[in-house]
Amino acid sequence: MQNFQFVNPTKIIFGNGEIVQLAKQIPTTSKVLILYGGGSVKKTGLLESIKAVLTDFQVGEFGGIEPNPTYETLMKAVEIIRKEKYDFLLAVGGGSVIDGTKFIAAAALFTKDDPWKFIVEGLPISAALPFGTVLTLPATGSEMNNGAVITRKELQAKIPFMSAKVFPQFSILDPVYTYTLPKKQIANGVVDAFIHVMEQYLTYPIASKVQDRFSEGLLLTLVEEGPKALQDPENYDVRANLMWTATLALNGLIGSGVPQDWSTHMVGHEITALYGLDHAQTLAIVLPSMLEVMKAEKLEKLLQYGERIWNLSTDLAPDEKSALAIEKTRDFFEAMGVKTRLADYGLGKDVIEKIIASLESHGMVKLGEKGTVTPDVVRQVLKLSL
Amino acid sequence: MQNFQFVNPTKIIFGNGEIVQLAKQIPTTSKVLILYGGGSVKKTGLLESIKAVLTDFQVGEFGGIEPNPTYETLMKAVEIIRKEKYDFLLAVGGGSVIDGTKFIAAAALFTKDDPWKFIVEGLPISAALPFGTVLTLPATGSEMNNGAVITRKELQAKIPFMSAKVFPQFSILDPVYTYTLPKKQIANGVVDAFIHVMEQYLTYPIASKVQDRFSEGLLLTLVEEGPKALQDPENYDVRANLMWTATLALNGLIGSGVPQDWSTHMVGHEITALYGLDHAQTLAIVLPSMLEVMKAEKLEKLLQYGERIWNLSTDLAPDEKSALAIEKTRDFFEAMGVKTRLADYGLGKDVIEKIIASLESHGMVKLGEKGTVTPDVVRQVLKLSL
Repeated sequence: MQNFQFVNPTKIIFGNGEIVQLAKQIPTTSKVLILYGGGSVKKTGLLESIKAVLTDFQVGEFGGIEPNPTYETLMKAVEIIRKEKYDFLLAVGGGSVIDGTKFIAAAALFTKDDPWKFIVEGLPISAALPFGTVLTLPATGSEMNNGAVITRKELQAKIPFMSAKVFPQFSILDPVYTYTLPKKQIANGVVDAFIHVMEQYLTYPIASKVQDRFSEGLLLTLVEEGPKALQDPENYDVRANLMWTATLALNGLIGSGVPQDWSTHMVGHEITALYGLDHAQTLAIVLPSMLEVMKAEKLEKLLQYGERIWNLSTDLAPDEKSALAIEKTRDFFEAMGVKTRLADYGLGKDVIEKIIASLESHGMVKLGEKGTVTPDVVRQVLKLSL
Repeated sequence: MQNFQFVNPTKIIFGNGEIVQLAKQIPTTSKVLILYGGGSVKKTGLLESIKAVLTDFQVGEFGGIEPNPTYETLMKAVEIIRKEKYDFLLAVGGGSVIDGTKFIAAAALFTKDDPWKFIVEGLPISAALPFGTVLTLPATGSEMNNGAVITRKELQAKIPFMSAKVFPQFSILDPVYTYTLPKKQIANGVVDAFIHVMEQYLTYPIASKVQDRFSEGLLLTLVEEGPKALQDPENYDVRANLMWTATLALNGLIGSGVPQDWSTHMVGHEITALYGLDHAQTLAIVLPSMLEVMKAEKLEKLLQYGERIWNLSTDLAPDEKSALAIEKTRDFFEAMGVKTRLADYGLGKDVIEKIIASLESHGMVKLGEKGTVTPDVVRQVLKLSL
């Protein structure tokens, strides 16, 4: 096991009806800005029910945070917050709204320079406004971590940042809020969470028995519950298991003390920034081919994964077993309705060099747990993904 | 799944050599009291190496916290802290030292009344001194939770308490510190952690897939690594896996959203308070018989446990499978060198009514996940444990 530090101060409030806990989580004199996305929280009535429990606070609203939240939109919220002196933020939505709120929370207090610089230049974030979240979409894990991914449209760039200052103070997770999600979003969420686990698990063995078992527990739950969530949207237990799994897939725990990959994510970000595919779609395209191209380096974990997640017989030859493990991974994404080929999204081989050029321009030239995923390797991966 | 709240702000600093991180975890102007147990931290040189990294602080020492830390001893530390105005505590040791430090941290600021009252009368704890820990014994999980068990000798009472104010600020977990532990303590630690998981897992099904998988991951790791730890004390990976497993066995995570039992612990506490057996010894005596007596209520989880932890064939009849699961549990404790019968510790059937009288005097008359473990049930359990 590698040495590690782990800390996660976010308070999780989980279960049906727990929105009643909201008001007591927020300091009493706060001026609260509620942030949300495309307006589904208005349609479902969630926004109204939240305002109904916040009657003791001064409350404002900022809607329109898009999937892959953009610097351009988020800076508008920053301006309002600075001008109207909001001092507590409440993100209501999925990973995009929460990621966007993390940026806004830090940017609002980052007055000495352009906040984009803490993303691209890594300028330190010394403070951020406190914020909580009400999660409506199980997928990214943003509700219980300190990372976010921000897009800058004019630069066609989608870049992650992390800071100890942007853990949510609390997150309210009510599985019932996910009943009304379109099937596509549930499917994307399952694939996203699955690949979050894979990025932290499918590397090389390092005697991290607990981390492996926990990762496998999350993967098995996604494999078992994902299809049920599509068929039976109002099954509380299924939605509850998916929601808690997606949170635990990226809250720092399973990644502590182990090597991590993240090459699939970095390639996926470029595809979204260039061609607008959903985040999970890009991951579903890249991961199976990445495993195929990197299978020599990843062989031991691939075999363990095949046996423990897909029940592949220990008698199979390693080549066959790893090939089957990858095939079953692709089949799972397809069964969830998330297509796994560039062609499925109308993209051909002409995109390959553009994606690679973008990666290179962002300095992403030595990806993966051993830094061996070079632009050449990504080229092979993308060819296999056509 | 049940509704739940989960929060755990303790920062874990894990790995060989991480003691160098210690000084920067403590506020610079602190006056630090180091607390420890019987003095093994002196023999191993750990105390000296800790003082060597704390040269910038005013540092004092308080040794002699016993296994099953007593109110009588702990109150001496409280007196010193109040008089000499220590404002940061550092527990160096295992669960007893850390539990004791939690009591001391809260008691030092609890000046309006006898601190014993927040244990037996549940008076609220509104503040506690901040403290960190350097763990030397993987077992209780106290290094990453907010619970403690305190013994009052004159009353032959051993009682748990919890408070949001007594989470450690940080805990340093270096597996190398466990190399010098006597085999008995390693064995006790493995059994203790195993039964912590069982108290949160072996109840009844509630569609908590992730919690089940995580619990099973911890149990499997203990079954795999426990015997190796006895045979090969300086195997870093084995000790690292045990240490991290014991922490995760009782940090609140696997118990979130599920029913919990704890009857074995409550009976065990009485045995320790009356007859001085090690905590883990009492648990190893009680658990197998408790599972036997309660097997009708626990049947579904017993079968799942038998299949997933002990690889029992799904073809076995339920009766046979549950009996085998219990037998294998007992065999595991015995193989670790922890005896599972009252007679092994020189106790006969005359102790049964004394233990039950003690339980009743502490109000422990409806134990277990359904409150069905009455004194009559405990009597059956203890008879089976002779």
